Amino acid sequence: MNQEASDRVGPLDDEYHWLSQMNKAANVALLEAGIIDMATARNNARTIAALDLAMLRPGVVRTGDYQQIEPQLIAIGGIEVSTLHCGRSRVDIVATSRRLLLRPAILGALDVLNAARQALMDLGQRHKRSLLPVYTQGRQSAGVPVGHYISAYTAALDVEFDNLKQAYDTVNQSPLGAGAVATSSFPLNRQRLSDLLGFACVIENSLFANELSIIGAGAKVVSAATSAAIIVGTLASDLESQYARTTPWFTIAEGPGLTGTSSSMPHKVNPTLLNHVRQQASVLIGTAMTYTLRSHNVPHGMPDSKRSEPNLAMAQYTQLMNDVARLVRHLDFDEAVARQEVDAEYSATPELADVLQQLHNVPFHVGHHFASALVRYGKANGWRPAHFPYDVARSLYADSARQAGILPAVLPLDEDAFKTSLSSANLVARAACLGGPQPAEVDRMMTAGLARIAADAAWLTKQRDALAAASALLDTAFASTQ
Amino acid sequence: MNQEASDRVGPLDDEYHWLSQMNKAANVALLEAGIIDMATARNNARTIAALDLAMLRPGVVRTGDYQQIEPQLIAIGGIEVSTLHCGRSRVDIVATSRRLLLRPAILGALDVLNAARQALMDLGQRHKRSLLPVYTQGRQSAGVPVGHYISAYTAALDVEFDNLKQAYDTVNQSPLGAGAVATSSFPLNRQRLSDLLGFACVIENSLFANELSIIGAGAKVVSAATSAAIIVGTLASDLESQYARTTPWFTIAEGPGLTGTSSSMPHKVNPTLLNHVRQQASVLIGTAMTYTLRSHNVPHGMPDSKRSEPNLAMAQYTQLMNDVARLVRHLDFDEAVARQEVDAEYSATPELADVLQQLHNVPFHVGHHFASALVRYGKANGWRPAHFPYDVARSLYADSARQAGILPAVLPLDEDAFKTSLSSANLVARAACLGGPQPAEVDRMMTAGLARIAADAAWLTKQRDALAAASALLDTAFASTQ
Amino acid sequence: MNQEASDRVGPLDDEYHWLSQMNKAANVALLEAGIIDMATARNNARTIAALDLAMLRPGVVRTGDYQQIEPQLIAIGGIEVSTLHCGRSRVDIVATSRRLLLRPAILGALDVLNAARQALMDLGQRHKRSLLPVYTQGRQSAGVPVGHYISAYTAALDVEFDNLKQAYDTVNQSPLGAGAVATSSFPLNRQRLSDLLGFACVIENSLFANELSIIGAGAKVVSAATSAAIIVGTLASDLESQYARTTPWFTIAEGPGLTGTSSSMPHKVNPTLLNHVRQQASVLIGTAMTYTLRSHNVPHGMPDSKRSEPNLAMAQYTQLMNDVARLVRHLDFDEAVARQEVDAEYSATPELADVLQQLHNVPFHVGHHFASALVRYGKANGWRPAHFPYDVARSLYADSARQAGILPAVLPLDEDAFKTSLSSANLVARAACLGGPQPAEVDRMMTAGLARIAADAAWLTKQRDALAAASALLDTAFASTQ
Amino acid sequence: MNQEASDRVGPLDDEYHWLSQMNKAANVALLEAGIIDMATARNNARTIAALDLAMLRPGVVRTGDYQQIEPQLIAIGGIEVSTLHCGRSRVDIVATSRRLLLRPAILGALDVLNAARQALMDLGQRHKRSLLPVYTQGRQSAGVPVGHYISAYTAALDVEFDNLKQAYDTVNQSPLGAGAVATSSFPLNRQRLSDLLGFACVIENSLFANELSIIGAGAKVVSAATSAAIIVGTLASDLESQYARTTPWFTIAEGPGLTGTSSSMPHKVNPTLLNHVRQQASVLIGTAMTYTLRSHNVPHGMPDSKRSEPNLAMAQYTQLMNDVARLVRHLDFDEAVARQEVDAEYSATPELADVLQQLHNVPFHVGHHFASALVRYGKANGWRPAHFPYDVARSLYADSARQAGILPAVLPLDEDAFKTSLSSANLVARAACLGGPQPAEVDRMMTAGLARIAADAAWLTKQRDALAAASALLDTAFASTQ
Repeated sequence: MNQEASDRVGPLDDEYHWLSQMNKAANVALLEAGIIDMATARNNARTIAALDLAMLRPGVVRTGDYQQIEPQLIAIGGIEVSTLHCGRSRVDIVATSRRLLLRPAILGALDVLNAARQALMDLGQRHKRSLLPVYTQGRQSAGVPVGHYISAYTAALDVEFDNLKQAYDTVNQSPLGAGAVATSSFPLNRQRLSDLLGFACVIENSLFANELSIIGAGAKVVSAATSAAIIVGTLASDLESQYARTTPWFTIAEGPGLTGTSSSMPHKVNPTLLNHVRQQASVLIGTAMTYTLRSHNVPHGMPDSKRSEPNLAMAQYTQLMNDVARLVRHLDFDEAVARQEVDAEYSATPELADVLQQLHNVPFHVGHHFASALVRYGKANGWRPAHFPYDVARSLYADSARQAGILPAVLPLDEDAFKTSLSSANLVARAACLGGPQPAEVDRMMTAGLARIAADAAWLTKQRDALAAASALLDTAFASTQ
Repeated sequence: MNQEASDRVGPLDDEYHWLSQMNKAANVALLEAGIIDMATARNNARTIAALDLAMLRPGVVRTGDYQQIEPQLIAIGGIEVSTLHCGRSRVDIVATSRRLLLRPAILGALDVLNAARQALMDLGQRHKRSLLPVYTQGRQSAGVPVGHYISAYTAALDVEFDNLKQAYDTVNQSPLGAGAVATSSFPLNRQRLSDLLGFACVIENSLFANELSIIGAGAKVVSAATSAAIIVGTLASDLESQYARTTPWFTIAEGPGLTGTSSSMPHKVNPTLLNHVRQQASVLIGTAMTYTLRSHNVPHGMPDSKRSEPNLAMAQYTQLMNDVARLVRHLDFDEAVARQEVDAEYSATPELADVLQQLHNVPFHVGHHFASALVRYGKANGWRPAHFPYDVARSLYADSARQAGILPAVLPLDEDAFKTSLSSANLVARAACLGGPQPAEVDRMMTAGLARIAADAAWLTKQRDALAAASALLDTAFASTQ
Repeated sequence: MNQEASDRVGPLDDEYHWLSQMNKAANVALLEAGIIDMATARNNARTIAALDLAMLRPGVVRTGDYQQIEPQLIAIGGIEVSTLHCGRSRVDIVATSRRLLLRPAILGALDVLNAARQALMDLGQRHKRSLLPVYTQGRQSAGVPVGHYISAYTAALDVEFDNLKQAYDTVNQSPLGAGAVATSSFPLNRQRLSDLLGFACVIENSLFANELSIIGAGAKVVSAATSAAIIVGTLASDLESQYARTTPWFTIAEGPGLTGTSSSMPHKVNPTLLNHVRQQASVLIGTAMTYTLRSHNVPHGMPDSKRSEPNLAMAQYTQLMNDVARLVRHLDFDEAVARQEVDAEYSATPELADVLQQLHNVPFHVGHHFASALVRYGKANGWRPAHFPYDVARSLYADSARQAGILPAVLPLDEDAFKTSLSSANLVARAACLGGPQPAEVDRMMTAGLARIAADAAWLTKQRDALAAASALLDTAFASTQ
Repeated sequence: MNQEASDRVGPLDDEYHWLSQMNKAANVALLEAGIIDMATARNNARTIAALDLAMLRPGVVRTGDYQQIEPQLIAIGGIEVSTLHCGRSRVDIVATSRRLLLRPAILGALDVLNAARQALMDLGQRHKRSLLPVYTQGRQSAGVPVGHYISAYTAALDVEFDNLKQAYDTVNQSPLGAGAVATSSFPLNRQRLSDLLGFACVIENSLFANELSIIGAGAKVVSAATSAAIIVGTLASDLESQYARTTPWFTIAEGPGLTGTSSSMPHKVNPTLLNHVRQQASVLIGTAMTYTLRSHNVPHGMPDSKRSEPNLAMAQYTQLMNDVARLVRHLDFDEAVARQEVDAEYSATPELADVLQQLHNVPFHVGHHFASALVRYGKANGWRPAHFPYDVARSLYADSARQAGILPAVLPLDEDAFKTSLSSANLVARAACLGGPQPAEVDRMMTAGLARIAADAAWLTKQRDALAAASALLDTAFASTQ
């Protein structure tokens, strides 16, 4: 996080803060448009600054409701200060305020999303070449390296970064100056207001700006949250599923907030943080559904359209990703346990048929038929692939080949080659396609993944710099009204 | 819709069609990679072409399940045809198939979204300057021109176009060649497969490609559908709310599928299509929630990840927008009725205070106090603004001014100016900000809105051209294997 | 609310309170089963009582987590106090605790539901005979008395009382003594534990008791909340729809927390509480959806099954119904405004055809055809029903009759009878069926509705008495262990 | 299923059938009330009967829309037949029709729910005493007999039977005769109409009957569906979680529609039906959410209130429970595999501490401390409980005892007793509480569970008998009008 920016985001980055910024911007724009004169602007400026100071006092209620703030401004600067509200309404203030509060919330959520991606990458690097089972239809499909597994999840989170970034672009637009719903006869420069508050652009149509645009912007925020929560839920469900084993391959290091013990069962070490993460993901999706439910079936102009679920969603998102990062950092991986499960399954047999075709011109269907017979035979006998007798394999191959009229009906693999062809390590080593589990591809994808994280961090810095620059611009412009 | 493209999309743009296209692309890629020789490729190509023909016969079941199609291919071309499946699995076929089917479905949905936007624009043009009430907090906020109201809704739908376009970009990526989950030792050129099917890029990590990427892509599709449905629900709720009046300002032209009559109540003409549209919007959101519910809390590799809700959502979206377009095309607008409601409310009074300040230097708070007193007095007496007696206004102004110590305590508006300042037409005419309801801004926004629709239509054409070009590329490459 | 009961429910009716009650019950049951001896029981009892006292001190953290409370018990009474946990686990403690906390929460929610029903009844009584429009398909269907309208809504809330009562029955069952999941070899009398805590029965199967029964119980609670929220949402939408008119017939009395004003629009008086009520209803449904989402797709034994949404839902339900009651108590009804809308529509015309058939033997289809023609003619001319010229009616009747071959083709109603037949007051007065809007039926239904509220209040008292009796039983039994 | 009843439910139990039944009931009630004379009634009756016959012809569209049926009736019987509609409206017809269609749908859903419960019971009986692991917090909590596990799930489904039964009671009430919304001046006997259609009672208030009661009734139906789907989802997730192992303890017998194979992976046998069941459960919950979403935020009288999701939910529920029953009937249980997982975990250690206290007066905390040390030591050394060296146990006990000052510090269990105390079989055998896993309790609960199924089947028969009796009553009464 950019230091300048981080200094600005804190306990004071609240609704009052942003109301005050809007007041400052209004004072600048009103003066520039000739709606108020310099004397009035000066009085307004002094009053705003005085209230800002007063609001720093401990115990003060820092509200963002202009209807409560205006009397306090008037108490300081006199009734003239009400000119600040020319051409403005609480309607556009609230519409703008939601967006001003969402911006740092989204950037903060993206920070911790990046931290979670980095933690995953670190885990992937630590156990890059170790195998673990992955699944299709709920059954072991193959044993792949942890690096491959992890870069699949970070790729999913790359997309989530994009989603929330797109939401940010939708949020970072200014309704200010739309007035109640129809602007007003005060010729406020809405582009100037937008610039002073660091927005990327003005939302033009004033009815759209106040009453409709927030629907899409909020939907975009909670959609991004939903999608990310489903990915987290998938990862957590993966981890929970293997945690149901007496000896899982991923285990959380014991510690407070990470694991829990039982009051009655000496053998229990519960994956507290893991279960918590999945539940938080559900709660976050629930917040998104609440937003949708609340938005639907109501005419424009209902207060629902300025509701708080998107902001709540960003707080929950941040907490969730923080916990994901913490969880991942504390995951121990037991290579032997994972390997035992990989080796228990005949999941390298697809490669057996491939090798026969590629290196020995055995038609694909013959190899596949042989491999299937081998699996059936081996499972019926309770043999692990590594213990499958070579003689039996030769005999099964002969049957398959003869049945298909392929001669000679002799398995064209010697015992070593046969054993190798049943190992997951071989399947991984021989993988030959873009995005496969072979070391070169895993290395390439992890490097690319780290570069994506860095690029996204740079984007975050750029946004924070833009907000800081706008803040400086507002400070300067406001100073000129004092 | 581009004619070439529309010729390709039709009853045959089904799962079998796309499976066949994948088979053709596989044949090309297998030959180019040297995995199969030319003789095999030729036999494969002839077989695929023969089955394509056979599948055009009436009554044939055109399935996209390779496990059902492979035996039919083998029956035609012999067991060698099974080489088509080298390096491939039903897992990546299904993952790719979902995307191949979603692409035209999304483009089709965007077509009708554009038609709905155009219909709204046409309605807006027909009644551009006529006033109707708009609301904040459920109460009339102002009377604005229909052109302003409509361009707010089309602006909302512009955003929805972007949402679904972004979903298209996420969908238009190729998992093909990922195999079951870990690619294989067959050196398939996944980039080539992607190009032959017209995808914008390859989804690299093979586990991500098959089992995780679809979660985000599907979520993106149903999120875009949800957001659009909420906007439609808002518009429909607006229209329904005024339809509850004995004499609404927007009425649907009577006709089959548009309105309905009662079997027992002679006076009823029900807005059937309108109510239907809102309900369809709800059902579409329900489909999106089903997707979310189904995706969550399951480990990777469950069949849920290739579920059909996104495709269903696009079909429902298309139907919904078709009906929105049809509804809007049949909306009659009764200017007098809308104007009566606008004129019944004191919604131009904000402008009264503004005028006093701008033209007569009456402090904002004095003007606002006077306007409030006037509204209270008028409502208590049951007067419409147009009938508010000038004398009473002068007297109320004098009170407000005196109370604030403003002298002379004489209303600085003559009777005509006073009457004018209470009219919504005046409020609209005097609006001075970007995005306001004044004629110049409404004209500018409607022109810009039409340009957006045209630009989006051009984008659609470009996508269809790209798909058509890929289709031609595949035809050519496939022909060279024959 | 029963006074005794209400004394017990308060800030101390928290998780610690109920943990302590469970400890007391355990001490009784352990002693009675001979698992601990009298000396141990006495020490345990003294310790529990001492901690209860200590927990009343200000600033103390009153947790319900036995893992945090056990050390505090041991600090007071020595390590022997850990015998309290024989045959028990935090698993059954938490499962029981959820239910102990839900019981008073549900009873409290039912209290305010009753208050809301009563407030509606009072409103109905105040304007019992005044007409207002009701709708089908979004259009005015008829004008009915407020008493009829209100008793429809209270009938809906009667059902909601039943729903939450059924949920209470599901919740008021005891998992205690199920241990972690398989009970234990300590022969704890689970029926006795259940009685001491006031449960209606034991949930037998220990795996079901701890890990599955709560799913159904929680679902029952949030389902009842959902259903009630939809009814509230329907009522609020009704009220909001007419509030969109410049002059609504139901208006909220102005006041803080009831209505709001605008900072820029002098004419606005917003129905703040009404809009708030509908939004709360949405949020409550969102909580229910979160519960569902969180419960689904997870194996038994996940912490999700003891999640807090049902308790949160009851707090939100209580707040919602409180606000409904408050809203309804502050509703003003303007009979003239409602009547104007009723009289603007030809919604009494169904009765015109009925009268012709019943009293004058005009075939139903002829009467209906005539009535339809009359409506069309009247609307085309912009006439209200009351102003429909008798001559025109006679002429239209003649056409209809002749067309159907009915002679003489003379309208068998004189002018007075004709006018009467077009009035909603007449339609109401002549309604002849069970449940109709006629005074006798409205009176009967309102009387029955009040009786239902009273009966439900009596049921609530009975439940509270049962809880109080159990509490006294536990006190006595616990005293005997001291 | 009762044979008589099943004869009546079939392809003809459709919307037209029930419209015709309503017409017959109307004819009876109109004649009895003197609204029509005998000649008219006779003509009506003959016409209804004639149309019934005509509607049996192949290819005929059997609609339930009275607006389409009335012209066909008139074509047969003349314009007088329109008297059937006196005092009636399509509004109450549709409201009644929903309920008439839901009744057999709910009873059918309950039939298959019972079949699923029975299938579970059969599975439980087949492997009643075999152990399998059950979980808390996602970790093995204990090994319990299959009979215990199964009776937990059937207990959960007992509750689901109650839920849907309560929904049936809410549905089985008659809105007929409510007219459009306000009844009419025709003195229709609504109680008689209700009796003739087999409803348990009349829904009185006519506005409630038509427009509000269906909200609660539909919510009740979809809530019952949601709750049942979550239980099914829990069971399916349990089964899927163990299916992720190379060798699961529950396996589906291979067969079409039960399991699936892979086109590329010879080792895969996918649990197709199991995965399908869980997905169906999600889709069913999605249907329920769609209902909720559609019902909320709309005023009374919108067509949403007569929407079809409850009917769809019952169809999906029936299919789901059918598939659950089929799945369970095809589950093989491998006792050895389950036992291996049970024996791998120290999940019997809670009993170790219990035995020490109960039989040897070792304070609970000392026993628990010793058991915890033993687990830690055993896991660190990778020992299964059965292989834990007695000497090490004695040494660990001595440490724990000495630390607590308990003398003599000698483990009071000989080697056999020690080994026994670590076995899950022992834990089960010694369980001493109501609802525990001990044989006597499992037997008792399974017997009770079977009795519940039988009682519920009897309730179903009773409902069907009541519907058949009403049908006969209507036939007789209708015959008397012919």
